[in-house]
Amino acid sequence: MTQERRDQLQSFLAALGLTPPSADCSLAVLDEALTHTSAGLAFNHERLEFLGDAVLRLAASEFLERHYPQLSVGQSSALRAQLVSDRWLAELGERCQIEALLRIGPTAAGDQAGRATLRAEACEAVIGALYQLWGNLEPVHRWLTPHWQRDAAQWEADPNRHNWKSALQEWSQANRQGLPQYSSREVSQIHADPQRFHCEVRLGDALLGEGRGGSRRLAEQDAARAALEQLKPARGS
Amino acid sequence: MTQERRDQLQSFLAALGLTPPSADCSLAVLDEALTHTSAGLAFNHERLEFLGDAVLRLAASEFLERHYPQLSVGQSSALRAQLVSDRWLAELGERCQIEALLRIGPTAAGDQAGRATLRAEACEAVIGALYQLWGNLEPVHRWLTPHWQRDAAQWEADPNRHNWKSALQEWSQANRQGLPQYSSREVSQIHADPQRFHCEVRLGDALLGEGRGGSRRLAEQDAARAALEQLKPARGS
Repeated sequence: MTQERRDQLQSFLAALGLTPPSADCSLAVLDEALTHTSAGLAFNHERLEFLGDAVLRLAASEFLERHYPQLSVGQSSALRAQLVSDRWLAELGERCQIEALLRIGPTAAGDQAGRATLRAEACEAVIGALYQLWGNLEPVHRWLTPHWQRDAAQWEADPNRHNWKSALQEWSQANRQGLPQYSSREVSQIHADPQRFHCEVRLGDALLGEGRGGSRRLAEQDAARAALEQLKPARGS
Repeated sequence: MTQERRDQLQSFLAALGLTPPSADCSLAVLDEALTHTSAGLAFNHERLEFLGDAVLRLAASEFLERHYPQLSVGQSSALRAQLVSDRWLAELGERCQIEALLRIGPTAAGDQAGRATLRAEACEAVIGALYQLWGNLEPVHRWLTPHWQRDAAQWEADPNRHNWKSALQEWSQANRQGLPQYSSREVSQIHADPQRFHCEVRLGDALLGEGRGGSRRLAEQDAARAALEQLKPARGS
């Protein structure tokens, strides 16, 4: 690694609020995380992205346990799905300007959607690299907690930003209960009526929730939200 | 907790090859993991199962990195999906006779499939509890590594036990590439011909693999296996 690249990676860590665990610590693993497959080098981010995916999920679970102990298991699943989502990772990558550090090949320049994926993959790989460098989850928490705190508070304040349907599916699959089934019907003919559609969501025979909305899509989201709110609390309280 | 329950939990840990991190360590969290929701108590396994799910995934990722560094990312995804599957967890629960320790209510006695789910949930919750008790992944590795070593070796020796289709789906979703599409056709009319069906699997426009088999199902599995074998190796080697 050149001294220039080393300095660049050091500055990146510093911007994340991190000091390497030892002064002579090799930053090769961080370089690997920030090298996209398209660069055609002998190493790339894929191995660390695979690890980072699992590290991220555990860090998000611990974050929720520390900061949101009052949530039900259903609500925790819903929030965790947001905290580890590709959309969130891509936004994180934008905030820390990860693209400036990426080694990528010319073919990967791509469109907007492609660049969001690049950022998400790179963040996940960096999360894997931090875990390997430090040997524990602390640097991941130090980096991500301020972002998660801000974003989780916003999601709570503006629940319409949630994708309740995918959150409910995440919960039902994690709990081995198959896929939720939605059935909607039009209950009003008035075009702009915000209650025009009524929706029921079921798992097997059990009715989980009901919702209303100005479109089928919104009624389904509302039913999924109602279902998640009803799920029993985490500690049986 | 009664002294009897405490002794029971201590013996369980000893059978897993684990000594509690300190002599006066509270085993309440392990008791919580082994208390099913149906027992109707003030605490239950759900919170720890949620945590254990993420701990398990990270432990399996580390196991693969340590013991199978030569695998491609596709093969690692495939093997990880097996190592954390409900089927595997239920089998693990049977091996360590976890049901004998479970507090369950009368409604949860259930059928065979229900009992397998109970065992899988309990194992996942115990994994979460061990992580909390020790504060790291070491006890999880100590418990699971011998089982994983044995089972991963068997899967390698008898690849037909793999569910290649779900492994390929796991990989394609983790890599943000959507769902694989299979198309099969009958290429022979001979009933018992093991090559009777030919199958192609694609992701978007890309042909990932081709397979043959005596039924559509087997030809699809063969195509998924071929696709996974072709995916590029983890370290670009």
